[in-house]
Amino acid sequence: MISSHIDRLTYLRSRFLNWSLDAFLIIDPHNIKYLTGFSGDDGVLVIGPDDHTYLCVDGRYLTQAKNETTGVDVVYMTDKVDAITSILHKKRQGTVGFEDAIATVHFYQKLKEKNEHISFREMSPDIDLLRACKTEKELACIQKAADIAGNALQDILPSVRVGVCEKDIALELEYQIKKRGAEKPAFEIIVASGENSALPHARAGLRKIIAGDVLVIDYGAVYGGYHSDETCTFFIEKVESDLKEVYGLVKQAHDQAVNAVCAGVASSEIDRIARDIITEKGWGNYFTHGTGHGVGLSVHEAPRISVKSDQFLAEGMVITIEPGIYLPFHWGIRIEDTVCVTSRRAEILTKMSKELTILG
Amino acid sequence: MISSHIDRLTYLRSRFLNWSLDAFLIIDPHNIKYLTGFSGDDGVLVIGPDDHTYLCVDGRYLTQAKNETTGVDVVYMTDKVDAITSILHKKRQGTVGFEDAIATVHFYQKLKEKNEHISFREMSPDIDLLRACKTEKELACIQKAADIAGNALQDILPSVRVGVCEKDIALELEYQIKKRGAEKPAFEIIVASGENSALPHARAGLRKIIAGDVLVIDYGAVYGGYHSDETCTFFIEKVESDLKEVYGLVKQAHDQAVNAVCAGVASSEIDRIARDIITEKGWGNYFTHGTGHGVGLSVHEAPRISVKSDQFLAEGMVITIEPGIYLPFHWGIRIEDTVCVTSRRAEILTKMSKELTILG
Repeated sequence: MISSHIDRLTYLRSRFLNWSLDAFLIIDPHNIKYLTGFSGDDGVLVIGPDDHTYLCVDGRYLTQAKNETTGVDVVYMTDKVDAITSILHKKRQGTVGFEDAIATVHFYQKLKEKNEHISFREMSPDIDLLRACKTEKELACIQKAADIAGNALQDILPSVRVGVCEKDIALELEYQIKKRGAEKPAFEIIVASGENSALPHARAGLRKIIAGDVLVIDYGAVYGGYHSDETCTFFIEKVESDLKEVYGLVKQAHDQAVNAVCAGVASSEIDRIARDIITEKGWGNYFTHGTGHGVGLSVHEAPRISVKSDQFLAEGMVITIEPGIYLPFHWGIRIEDTVCVTSRRAEILTKMSKELTILG
Repeated sequence: MISSHIDRLTYLRSRFLNWSLDAFLIIDPHNIKYLTGFSGDDGVLVIGPDDHTYLCVDGRYLTQAKNETTGVDVVYMTDKVDAITSILHKKRQGTVGFEDAIATVHFYQKLKEKNEHISFREMSPDIDLLRACKTEKELACIQKAADIAGNALQDILPSVRVGVCEKDIALELEYQIKKRGAEKPAFEIIVASGENSALPHARAGLRKIIAGDVLVIDYGAVYGGYHSDETCTFFIEKVESDLKEVYGLVKQAHDQAVNAVCAGVASSEIDRIARDIITEKGWGNYFTHGTGHGVGLSVHEAPRISVKSDQFLAEGMVITIEPGIYLPFHWGIRIEDTVCVTSRRAEILTKMSKELTILG
């Protein structure tokens, strides 16, 4: 792992000329982890302006930063802007890239005030794409996260039945995910039953499952810092024929989108394929979110799989495909897999069956 | 609860004249929840420019936003900046406050481009202080969170003994916190044993507890959206006399700081009191963080209890007092309570004993 961090820093430095940059500030903890191995939540990485790479952390993280990194100068800081300023001071002018989609206005104003001779350049889209294509080691972590999560869900499914409340299902699933060696769930697990399933981002609550319910479970695990993301929609004891039909439609959208995944295809095209299938049957207005997103050190990262995306799929990208249809106050159905883009097709990393499943 | 959200919005509006503002943009989900009750993770609240308050959310949150709010116009958005622009368009010029410590540079640049006639004003410190003084209802939630967390820890303590690994302690504690009705732990629980305790922000890992260990457990719960925060430092089976002394010193710093808490006192003064006690004994360089922070809808919020803070304590504020001493690669000791500021003293909300405790 150590050498790969240095390789990543070297690669990033090699782009400086192309981008006309003299240095780069990194404040996103995921990017800092990607480039150095430091896994703390707070710090600043200054790449250049000389040949050095400075990782500035406050007293909480000093020992940890020294332990986790190599080839990086760990600098003790009490204030981010002051620390950056004193490093950039070594080269009084130049152009410095920064993550404009992460940096706050407050931080940036202070930074500019103290570094008047420096021109700062918004570089978020470029830096975000750095992490999009995964190495074998990264893929192995995501696969492991997906396996742990899937096995945990498989394990608790027998206890999912009429009378059990959403929160207890989420709690047991989270417990099993951790027990199996994941660092944590990839996000707050969604267990949404009945009318709650109509909310794409419902929280698991006190509602008890009843016969005839739709049950959406959106979950994942983190392993080695890498996330998995999967959604299963189950039916409890029985399924009405109209819901069976909608499930089939969402599954068709999901399957066709997955089948279209291949290096070189536009992200927006994947979204269009899923959306067209749903729209043709009159449900277009009820598919209220994008078709997917990249997954890695962050559960949401580049590329977006949406009509607005201008990115193209490339080998090694890991993305979700997750179409859904939501009828407000009634029900929602979403089917989601995390897949890896190869030169020929999608490899599905999440392993739960997406065939219509009736529980209980 | 409903009327209190309206009261908060009304109060915020009543400050507009004083601040020379025509409208206010709120994007921090905690502030949106505070002002409207909407508990989703993503949205924009536009207060004014007319007498309306607009809560803009995307398709994932539309139903939820309508369910959770009252007296607010829920607006469907596909893009934040576009949604804000179309609302502000009703009043083509004026001054609009925004949260500069939350808004990203990317968001702000787009916002300014599309709203050239509007002057945006950085208002983060003012808006942050809105939430600092808690109502009785808010205090009750924090107290409940602290009680749940404390009871959960008390319950699992008998299982904390030589041979058990940090991660399993954290997992059981988290499970008990949720089982007792909390929404979730207040943050990723820290269980740091032996040399790991020297890292103030250690993660619970695979290290197994051995006799003579220091064991730091930093944990909390969320109830009704409100957080608690507490740290207990235990000793396993025995305690060396030098560590006993350091524990006593940290406890003295903690106790004296707690005793000094009172409405009207400067936050920086509380930090100074704790820091002086530790510095006098030669450990000043090993107390590597601030003495505390506000706690509420967010686990870290205004006011900061640090030498850099210019805020004064006021009745109803809820803050942590958490001095610590960390000897890199050897051990760390931290003692933390969440306390409520009253006109006469601090009321301690977290209830675990802070007397030196030997486990096992």
